[in-house]
Order: sequence, then structure tokens, then C-alpha cells
Amino acid sequence: MVQGAAPAAVARAAVALADELADAAIAGDRRALARLLTAVENRTPVAEAAMRRLYPMAGRAHLVGITGPPGSGKSTLVAALIAEVRGAGRPVAVVAVDPSSPITGGALLGDRVRMQAYAADDGVFIRSMASRGHAGGLASTSTAAAAVLDAAGFDLILLETVGTGQSEVEVAAAADTTVVLEAPEMGDEVQAIKAGLLEVADLVVVNKGDKPGAQRTAAQLRAMLVATAVRDADPSRPRPKRPEVLITTAATGEGVPALLAALDRHRAAGREGVSAAARLARAEAQVWAIVTDRLRARLHDDANRGRTAATLEAVASHELDPYAAADVLLAGLADPDPE
Amino acid sequence: MVQGAAPAAVARAAVALADELADAAIAGDRRALARLLTAVENRTPVAEAAMRRLYPMAGRAHLVGITGPPGSGKSTLVAALIAEVRGAGRPVAVVAVDPSSPITGGALLGDRVRMQAYAADDGVFIRSMASRGHAGGLASTSTAAAAVLDAAGFDLILLETVGTGQSEVEVAAAADTTVVLEAPEMGDEVQAIKAGLLEVADLVVVNKGDKPGAQRTAAQLRAMLVATAVRDADPSRPRPKRPEVLITTAATGEGVPALLAALDRHRAAGREGVSAAARLARAEAQVWAIVTDRLRARLHDDANRGRTAATLEAVASHELDPYAAADVLLAGLADPDPE
Repeated sequence: MVQGAAPAAVARAAVALADELADAAIAGDRRALARLLTAVENRTPVAEAAMRRLYPMAGRAHLVGITGPPGSGKSTLVAALIAEVRGAGRPVAVVAVDPSSPITGGALLGDRVRMQAYAADDGVFIRSMASRGHAGGLASTSTAAAAVLDAAGFDLILLETVGTGQSEVEVAAAADTTVVLEAPEMGDEVQAIKAGLLEVADLVVVNKGDKPGAQRTAAQLRAMLVATAVRDADPSRPRPKRPEVLITTAATGEGVPALLAALDRHRAAGREGVSAAARLARAEAQVWAIVTDRLRARLHDDANRGRTAATLEAVASHELDPYAAADVLLAGLADPDPE
Repeated sequence: MVQGAAPAAVARAAVALADELADAAIAGDRRALARLLTAVENRTPVAEAAMRRLYPMAGRAHLVGITGPPGSGKSTLVAALIAEVRGAGRPVAVVAVDPSSPITGGALLGDRVRMQAYAADDGVFIRSMASRGHAGGLASTSTAAAAVLDAAGFDLILLETVGTGQSEVEVAAAADTTVVLEAPEMGDEVQAIKAGLLEVADLVVVNKGDKPGAQRTAAQLRAMLVATAVRDADPSRPRPKRPEVLITTAATGEGVPALLAALDRHRAAGREGVSAAARLARAEAQVWAIVTDRLRARLHDDANRGRTAATLEAVASHELDPYAAADVLLAGLADPDPE
């Protein structure tokens, strides 16, 4: 039921629909763009055909990952950034990875509210994606969505995630520029999460700058980053080891122009090679997700389904260890026609 | 450098060391057990050899996933559960998936403190695992760790994760019994995360029961769960759709005996087949992680390394789309000797 297994007629129909939607999206049709993104989110054959068409047109946009713990004010900062970017007349798209449902998906209320505020503005496109699907899918789905938005002409794309899970952090870290948000006075568990987040940051933003302790939090972060830079000094790493620490108050817009300027500076630096590693990591995540999708489809196709189910049942009942099971399944994949 | 690529002598040494450590761990040697778990965490050849040996001995323990948003008091509840289980003279192990660092790993301070409290008690084993590694690795690594602890005689294993990321939720959801923690009066963003978490719950626990609003939160959760059960009624699903809602105050131990009793009831129900789906999901996650590890190793072995790197570079520079790249790599895998 995945790519490759579809009969020829279905595949042709998918290509025709993908071409039609891609042309319309490039011409500025927002409904066509939304339908393409739904196809990408659901990994349909239309998504494959659209990506084959649109991907070569992408690669121009600046991908900015924005992540941080719950309560750091990511959505408010994204809204403030949109206003700032629109004030400069530049188009901007947002892909918000939605944590509301790991199983069935869903959309945050706040996202729908933000959508409405820009419903009449063709220069803004906001899309939330559920963090569902098999492991590893989150990074590939959101970067594929970014490629579609890129091909459709959005020059700045913000990828917003809640930075508390491994997959969610990977999404933000695969951007050209990764912004990690903090807020003054967060709890202990959040502090622990924060230490991990800082490792992926190109820019650190202390939001809620009007709260007591914002300056102190920024100073602590700067000290922490200096200590880390000294500890981990490694000339072979392309990522600058000392991210700038900025203070914003997203609710009032204070500090947001400086943040946009910092993003643009980092983008310009990326043009000179700083983000090459991020681009390669994104490419690898996307290709790997497709490779594993196809292998998974082969393990469950008519020729292999029976053996796969029996092998997994044997592991579940502890009659077979997982390594022996992997040997069995890989042997089956190597022999495409076991009958 | 992964399994299968190691020269025969290295493989033999790994098997010898794994056998030695496995025998010692089964005999109660905690340092050997800790070394095995480190091997599992790092996916070394020793881990493979140990799993081949120990996995058939596992399958007896009750795996309990405990997850919830930051601030719901998971660590305190786990400590209270340990005390309760030890009071009944039963052994217990804890695998805490550590969110402190998605990149380099790390350990929460609180975990080390808890460790020390039970340093002299052979009936308790506490281990934190970093949530690093490739996507999908978290679930397979933590369930492999659980299998080692199971074979070593731990009859109750608690898998503790921060339930905010997709991978982290998957770890807890793959347990025989999944406990989702909530606390009264959490913020909006946390509420949104909560809705997704409830979908994987077998038991819902409102912790911090001494806080104002605990009873109201429990009542709201019960109403929410009834509404969800009505909406999603599906006789084909094995998981009971109406998880019990309990109230605990982990800091004082209030409600913890009732929680342990509920866990034991769910375990007994699982013996009659309720957790078969969880066992199959765990088996699939473990086998799939090994299959993909091996394929990844093949894509980077001597025969394929050059083509893989060139293909990914072409995708990164948008000369090739990711689907065409996947075709190239899969064709290479199908032909084991392209020279």
C-alpha cells in the first residue's frame, strides 16, 4: 500500500494530481499547497510524485528551527516574528510540529487562531503537523513539508517544535539555523531538558524578558555556553560553539527586530558553508525515511507477510531472540521471490 | 563497524565477554549487569551476543511504563513505588529514559541521588539511559535493557520517561501496563500534551493529590475518558478503553499501595491476553531497530560508502530528489557486490 506497490493506473493518477497541485501551489494557490502538505504528512503516492517534481526547485529558503520547553513562549515568539517579517514585506511560512497527540494527531487551538489572523495575507502560510507516524518520520515529514513550501516561494520557513522529545529536537536541529527558547525561572526538570537543548542551539533566546530574572537567566546561559565551549573545543566541528544569547519579550515585540537581524546574519554565514552539515543531515533523514518505508512495505508484502508475522510472534513469545529474527527477515529481503 | 562487519576474532571476544557478563548478572553481580546495560545502550557487539543468550530467558517480568509531563512528579512517584514494592519483599528495577541531553547523553542529578539510597539493596536496580541515538532507537534500547533486567531476575521493571516527545511516549506505550501521570493545574501547553498521553494510558494517576484541584482534575479526566471511549468505541481493540483514574500523593506515599494493587490487577489481566499487542509491538520495535541498523551499516560499508555519500550530497544540493536517491541506494543494497 506504500510507494512502489501501487498499481500503474493509481501511480499515473497520483502523478497527474501531484503535477496539477504542484503547478497550482507554485502559482500561489493556497488550497493546493495545503493539499500537498496533507499528502506529505500522510506519505501518500501523491506526496512522492510532488516531491520528485518540487524538490529540485527547493533549496533556496532559510529554514529556522525554533524549539524550547513548554511554557517558554514559542508560539507567541513565532507570532511576533511573523509580524516583524511581514513588516519588512517578506513572505514567511510556519510548520508547527504539534505535540497534542502522538497517536491520532490533532491541532493546537492556538495554531488555528493564528491561522485566522493571516487568512487574508498571501505572504503567510501556517501549518501544523501531528507528531505521529513511525519513528524517524517526524524529521523527514517536516523537512519534506519545508521543501514544498520552499518550492512554492516561501523564502523564510520557521519549524516550531516543543523541545522536550528526541524526535522533536531533531526536527529543529536539522534547520539551517536553530533557535532555542528559554524563559526565566523554569522548574528543575525543565532545566535538565534545557541543558540538552543548548547543544543544538545556533541562537539562544531568553523570552519573557519582562519577567524578573530574565537578565540573570541570560547571564547564566552565557556562562554555561562559555564553559561548554571550553570543555568541547573541537576545531573539526562546523557549528559555531558559542551561540549568541538574546533577550526578547515576544508579547510586546521587544527584542524581536534584533532576533530577525541575528537570523539573517546566521543565514548569510550559512551561505558561506556553516549550514552544509545541516543540509546533509536533512537529506540523509529524508532519504533514510523513504528507504525504511520501502523496506517495511516489502516485509509486509504478499511474498513476505507470513514469514514476518510468524517471526515477530516468535520474538514476542521469547522463542526467538531479536537478532536471530533480524537475520531471518533480512534473508527474506535478499531473496525477492522466496516461493 | 556495527554487527556483522566485525572481524571474526572481535566477534568471538564479544561472545566470550557477553557470556561471562550474562552468567555473572544472572548470579546477581550488579556490576556485570551495569556493564551489560551499557553495552545495550551503546549497541555494541557484546550487547548482541548478550541478547542472543539472555532474551530466551526473559519474558516473565511485568513491564510498567510510567510517563507524564514535566512537573507531574514522576521521579517522586517511582521512588514511592520502589519503597512500596520493597516493603512487600519484591525485587524491582527502574529504567529512566533521561531527557537531559538529546545529543551527548547525561544523567539527572535526582537519579544519582535515588541510586545511592538503594546502593546496599540487591532487590533494587536503577538505571538511567540517555535518549540519544538514531530515531526509533529509544524504544528498542529501553526494551532490550528491560529484557536484560528480566533475565537477571527482576520481576517488576518500571520504564520512566518524560511524556512529551513521540519517542518517549512510544517507550512507555510499549510496556505491559502504561501509567500516565497528571498533576492538578498544569499550563495550557501541557494540557495539550496530556490529551495525547491519555490515549496510551492503561492507568491514569493524578499525583500531588494534596494540592487544591486534585479531585476536580481527576473528575475532569474521568469525564474526558468516558467521552473518548464513546467516540472511539472499537470492539477489535484489545486495550481496555476506560483506564482507571487514581489519585496519589507520592511525596507522602498516600494512594501508592492502591496504585501497586492496580498494577498487579492489570498484570493479572495481561496474563489473560490483554498485553499481547504490547508484546508484539515491543518485538517489532526491537527487530526493526536491528534490521535498520544492519542496513545502515551496509549503506556505509566499503562496497557502498562512496555511492551513499555521493547520493546524499546530490540530495543536499537539490540535484537529486530524495525518492530518486532512495531508488539508487536500494538498488545498491540489492546488488551486494557492485564492483
